[in-house]
Amino acid sequence: MSNSMEWSIRKAVKEDMGQVASLIKALAEYEKEGDEAELTSEDLIKDGFGDRAAFECLVAEEKGDVQGMAIFYPRYSTWKGRTLYLEDLVVKESERGKGLGKALFMALIEVCRKEGYRRLEWQVLDWNEPAIKFYEALGSQFDSSWLNGRITFPE
Amino acid sequence: MSNSMEWSIRKAVKEDMGQVASLIKALAEYEKEGDEAELTSEDLIKDGFGDRAAFECLVAEEKGDVQGMAIFYPRYSTWKGRTLYLEDLVVKESERGKGLGKALFMALIEVCRKEGYRRLEWQVLDWNEPAIKFYEALGSQFDSSWLNGRITFPE
Repeated sequence: MSNSMEWSIRKAVKEDMGQVASLIKALAEYEKEGDEAELTSEDLIKDGFGDRAAFECLVAEEKGDVQGMAIFYPRYSTWKGRTLYLEDLVVKESERGKGLGKALFMALIEVCRKEGYRRLEWQVLDWNEPAIKFYEALGSQFDSSWLNGRITFPE
Repeated sequence: MSNSMEWSIRKAVKEDMGQVASLIKALAEYEKEGDEAELTSEDLIKDGFGDRAAFECLVAEEKGDVQGMAIFYPRYSTWKGRTLYLEDLVVKESERGKGLGKALFMALIEVCRKEGYRRLEWQVLDWNEPAIKFYEALGSQFDSSWLNGRITFPE
């Protein structure tokens, strides 16, 4: 509460990608997949900016530091049309409980309404109760009936 | 076997979208979600062609008819970088067992290799055993630990 006016949400710039990469790594470690998170801040700068940008990023900034972030991009549903996918939403552990996560999520809902996306979608691990509760409190639905399939290259 | 040389895989054109819309509807009905498939062929033409195309589509054609299709688009993983997502792969029920589905899937693997995507990804319903077996025979891995979260607009 005491910090409620000291942070702001803004579009990420290249200089944020070091702190964003740290948050990605922290989330992967929490998800017990730390070794799977292979991208560096240089990869994020190369992939997230310029003509062929593969994602967009919002950051929650407090006193010049990135304390939280959301990475997202458009997808397409053959049932619903254009949707927005939230790839990662992370708030630094020490900065939780101040509303940064909710503010980032509400900013994405605003993007959906403004740009006409029919759905906001994401995934959570089935044991990640804090995340599930966070999203449920914001009016979300969860569906456990789909399996993720994949082939990774090079094999 | 007797039909193995009579079909071909090619990039979809606008004129295919009527048959593609029928295959999307047929898959949604098989998945017991027929009412959720709301898009028309006009929506697919508007969304899948031109500068802001939201997806790509390959079709398996036999004697001038679309007998199967794959719809896909790029995504981004904060662990692996650029990936390719297979939204729908459908072969008309009467045309199964001829290798059309496998040919469409192999064409997507070729797209991944050529364009440098790190992963090919998709989802299947956990009770859809024929699909799971089809993908497993092609070397895929499945992961059941993620829940799909969503908010649909307007609420």
